Amino acid sequence: MEVKTNYKYLENISLEEALEKYIRKINESGLILGKEEIPVEESYGRITCEGVFANISSPHYSASAMDGISLMANKTFGATPTTPVILKEIDDFVWLDTGDPLPSNCDAVVMVEDVIKLKDGSIQLISSATPWQHIRQIGEDICAGEMILPSNSKIEAASIGAMLAGGVLKVKVWEKPIIGLIPTGDEIVAPKDNPKEGEIIEFNSSIFSAMIRGWGGKSITYKIIGDKLELIKEGLAKAAQECHMIVLNAGSSAGRDDYSAKAIGDLGEVIAHGISIKPGKPTILGVINKKPVIGVPGYPVSGIIVMEKLFKRVLQTMQKVEFPPNQEKQAILSRPIMSTLKYKEFVRMKLGVVDEKLVATPLNRGAGVVTSFVKADGILEIPLNLEGIEAGSKITVQLLKDESVIKNTLVAIGSHDPLLDTIYDLMRKKDYKKHLSSAHVGSMGGIMAIKRGEAHLAAVHLLDERSGVYNSSFIKKYFPKGGITLVKGVKRLQGLMTVKGNPKGIKNLQDMTRDGVVYVNRQKGSGTRILLDYLLACDGIKTDSIYGYEREEFTHMAVAAQIASGSADTGLGIFSAANIYNLNFIPLYEEEYDFIIPERFLELEDVQNFLEILTSKEFEKILKTMGGYKLEQIGQIHRMDVN
Amino acid sequence: MEVKTNYKYLENISLEEALEKYIRKINESGLILGKEEIPVEESYGRITCEGVFANISSPHYSASAMDGISLMANKTFGATPTTPVILKEIDDFVWLDTGDPLPSNCDAVVMVEDVIKLKDGSIQLISSATPWQHIRQIGEDICAGEMILPSNSKIEAASIGAMLAGGVLKVKVWEKPIIGLIPTGDEIVAPKDNPKEGEIIEFNSSIFSAMIRGWGGKSITYKIIGDKLELIKEGLAKAAQECHMIVLNAGSSAGRDDYSAKAIGDLGEVIAHGISIKPGKPTILGVINKKPVIGVPGYPVSGIIVMEKLFKRVLQTMQKVEFPPNQEKQAILSRPIMSTLKYKEFVRMKLGVVDEKLVATPLNRGAGVVTSFVKADGILEIPLNLEGIEAGSKITVQLLKDESVIKNTLVAIGSHDPLLDTIYDLMRKKDYKKHLSSAHVGSMGGIMAIKRGEAHLAAVHLLDERSGVYNSSFIKKYFPKGGITLVKGVKRLQGLMTVKGNPKGIKNLQDMTRDGVVYVNRQKGSGTRILLDYLLACDGIKTDSIYGYEREEFTHMAVAAQIASGSADTGLGIFSAANIYNLNFIPLYEEEYDFIIPERFLELEDVQNFLEILTSKEFEKILKTMGGYKLEQIGQIHRMDVN
Repeated sequence: MEVKTNYKYLENISLEEALEKYIRKINESGLILGKEEIPVEESYGRITCEGVFANISSPHYSASAMDGISLMANKTFGATPTTPVILKEIDDFVWLDTGDPLPSNCDAVVMVEDVIKLKDGSIQLISSATPWQHIRQIGEDICAGEMILPSNSKIEAASIGAMLAGGVLKVKVWEKPIIGLIPTGDEIVAPKDNPKEGEIIEFNSSIFSAMIRGWGGKSITYKIIGDKLELIKEGLAKAAQECHMIVLNAGSSAGRDDYSAKAIGDLGEVIAHGISIKPGKPTILGVINKKPVIGVPGYPVSGIIVMEKLFKRVLQTMQKVEFPPNQEKQAILSRPIMSTLKYKEFVRMKLGVVDEKLVATPLNRGAGVVTSFVKADGILEIPLNLEGIEAGSKITVQLLKDESVIKNTLVAIGSHDPLLDTIYDLMRKKDYKKHLSSAHVGSMGGIMAIKRGEAHLAAVHLLDERSGVYNSSFIKKYFPKGGITLVKGVKRLQGLMTVKGNPKGIKNLQDMTRDGVVYVNRQKGSGTRILLDYLLACDGIKTDSIYGYEREEFTHMAVAAQIASGSADTGLGIFSAANIYNLNFIPLYEEEYDFIIPERFLELEDVQNFLEILTSKEFEKILKTMGGYKLEQIGQIHRMDVN
Repeated sequence: MEVKTNYKYLENISLEEALEKYIRKINESGLILGKEEIPVEESYGRITCEGVFANISSPHYSASAMDGISLMANKTFGATPTTPVILKEIDDFVWLDTGDPLPSNCDAVVMVEDVIKLKDGSIQLISSATPWQHIRQIGEDICAGEMILPSNSKIEAASIGAMLAGGVLKVKVWEKPIIGLIPTGDEIVAPKDNPKEGEIIEFNSSIFSAMIRGWGGKSITYKIIGDKLELIKEGLAKAAQECHMIVLNAGSSAGRDDYSAKAIGDLGEVIAHGISIKPGKPTILGVINKKPVIGVPGYPVSGIIVMEKLFKRVLQTMQKVEFPPNQEKQAILSRPIMSTLKYKEFVRMKLGVVDEKLVATPLNRGAGVVTSFVKADGILEIPLNLEGIEAGSKITVQLLKDESVIKNTLVAIGSHDPLLDTIYDLMRKKDYKKHLSSAHVGSMGGIMAIKRGEAHLAAVHLLDERSGVYNSSFIKKYFPKGGITLVKGVKRLQGLMTVKGNPKGIKNLQDMTRDGVVYVNRQKGSGTRILLDYLLACDGIKTDSIYGYEREEFTHMAVAAQIASGSADTGLGIFSAANIYNLNFIPLYEEEYDFIIPERFLELEDVQNFLEILTSKEFEKILKTMGGYKLEQIGQIHRMDVN
């Protein structure tokens, strides 16, 4: 889903061309940040605006590099075990410790280990010293007048030490860029926990503000401005006074009235409008009063991409410091991706190391799905003029998380149950280095993922309609070569959910065919969908007699959420989901929700952790609170032999 | 140089063993951080202490995903171009924009592009809609009750958006760990720009404080404590009350009295003392009142290594979040490194990409040389029981800077002149993406670096004593196969420096042999040393008649610094260095300071940049201020043909 506007985009230029044009324009405009002098101790992460030179040398005096005595080396010349030299304190030598200044009449230090103390306080040496030995010379670390840091350097921890060592107590740095964030849109409201219908929570500014902080800038978030040209212009003019740069964030409804481009154009200049990237195409690059103004689309995913791929580059130019690019890694694409020829596309990817291969699976591509960024481990860039990429292709992914995180991730793909959240939470409570990636693609999707080598385990609840047995016959069918284990999970109650009080009086499946009853279904391939079809067939109910049968949701929670909101009257789902949403529940079937794990993964540390949590007391306790589960067999491992 | 103590270390255990033992002890002690609830908007970078679950679904109502009309889909069934359906506003459909709530009596959206408007306000459709099309379902992004983040997760920008979308306005996080930094040592003083002899500037706390900030902690720096056991114990006891963890930083003179281990042992327990790493071996790992207390050696490089390799790991355990490890890269070692069998050694490395090979050169290994960390691009870990590594070996380097920085670095190795600082500064003023690495190893060292393929260019001033010609004969001798260009630099004045007023009345080289005159020399292989030997030979002066001839410094600045401080009376050096230190200068010789650049590097962007700056007006202007330079031939490129 992409923002649509009621006017034509000026152009559809490439990201690279737009950036080049824009940065040239900004550089020509002559905008530079101001300079400020700050204490070195507070300068961590700031950027020098001129070369920093040492005021004093470090060390600033000749110091002993050892504990021992200092003396004139020539007094020791000729000393050997057979012709030792005997020296008197003060007359000939002085005791001193590491770091003590070298007395002016001395040119060498003899370390204490080589000094033989005599009873009268004098000492004996049996080898000669060479002049300047064991002396820490002035300027060993840094000489006065030497450059410690050149212009436009990011100040790291060690640089702070080097500056202080060089007697530099204050340093001139570029002031932090201030970025004005202007959210717009009639439907937009500040974050709250009880929004009304039609109110859309404005959280983009909070995301952008955190990103800017991470990149070394400061942000000011202005009040939300409604869709009125004059108000937007007023806001822009004020921000152009107070900030170095502006992000004008369109409401997610661009259809109503998108005044961004017009407002920027009226007050300054629009350099580009409409960029061939997806998401993010309605982006506007403008300049008002020398200040860069970026019109960022309202959908959060579009916003994050535009901030990463465009805003960050402009900020980098302004701060005169480079942000390290994301690390790139080769991976194998698990599923085909379709793309549009007209756009460079950025797809969020889930990564996992399975069988020592890095496997990449595309996440939800909706521009409104901000959680896809929370889950994403990397970004795949699909170039212009490519229709798609085939499954099994080698692709290059820009990492969003460190490789070590990806390596420590247990990949679970399959059927959904809220208990997976609980397992993940317990896993991280036990070991903060461990991660669980769980994708909800239904039981059949899980089996396919295991077959393709994309996952370590799959959660399944697949009923064999003929035998009435859960899961095992599917394993035999889809893994004829064996090598698979079935780890028993929970028995759970499936049933019909309705709102509390059950106002439509739904009692059984037959009631779903009544006029005025709206059903909400699960997606094809999910165990719940298969169960529904089985139960309908038993009762002789035709699917086209159910209004809403075609309406698909991907999780029990999503089905429950539709019912709780009144957008559907009923749906088949598990007790714990109904319980979370405080719904009425009519039990229909007890099913077995188990885990398929290839035998070769059983000994993996991450899988062992998973199994340990599965049979833990904490887990049992939480499942009891959630309700609707039986745990008699949990954790039992059945090796599924080939027939 | 390493800190020495006047008592035996308790042990010499390996880093890995010490860490394992220490972290086990800390975990057993049961110390955990407190929890606090903070606004989500301020939670960037913080760590969740429990799972975060959505309070509301996002979207929280069924919304139109398009601009268009909403209706009951069944009203459109059967619509084709030949049998269009005509619908009336309000009765049959409602206009709405993207994001608008779906009216309760509608189940589909038709996008505006597919709507044919008729004159009377009614519309015509020529294709049928399917129920639930173009509707953004409740919970598309997140469902109420779903987990947004598990326990012990670092909060990223997108997570902030996801929490706000899920109606979560406050989040429970671990409090930031507070680390007490206690500097100790009688000789230690707070940073100042005019320290006295024997005063050592305490800058470790400032370095550590910045490191801790970068790792998500907070620090308190306590006042410097003198070398008195009772005072150190008092300080430790106070910090153990106020902080979660303590860094007790020993003065760099451990010889005087190092009470750290005793103080920690008296108040709590010493878990390890003496670790087989270099630098860093006198490290103490202790626990007071459940709180980790790390005794960190006083030399800054030792301190940084111990903070990186030990402290950071403990902090990670406490914060329950992993810091990504440094990226590792294969490189070729340019020079042999000797190591000690007894220690795992950490060597700071300079990296450069020359001829498409990543070349690693060890930096100054002195534990007191904090600037080596400013210059370092990476760290080489030399394992225990290895005597050294040969030049040309493939080594694995832990990167301290991003690869992109290393790739954009022009590597210059050779003779020193302060003008190199100026070139570097101008280079970064011109393009913040460019870096210059200049190592001062003398002219001959520069030639050898070019031969070994370690550098892009070498600064040289080598006098052929027979012909009196500079540089070219050396190129012919050392590069018999040709392929080298000589880029003319500056003519510069070499002469004898003395303090202002020249109290010892030095007029010429002969005066250096006088009693009571202390000389300071440059290292073997430096052009200045070769010049001195040539001038001495001309005048028939023997080197052993000069007191201080054996005393070597590596830069003109270091020679000038010795003279300015009174630690030497005179030394041969260039006018600009004398000028920086406000010294007296007796001109002796005008020499040619040029650059050797292999022909194949001439077209590199970085080399072109260098040449451009060399011939720029800004550079000329700065050299005039520095004094002692002539620029008649600067930038001229001589291709040195094979004879």
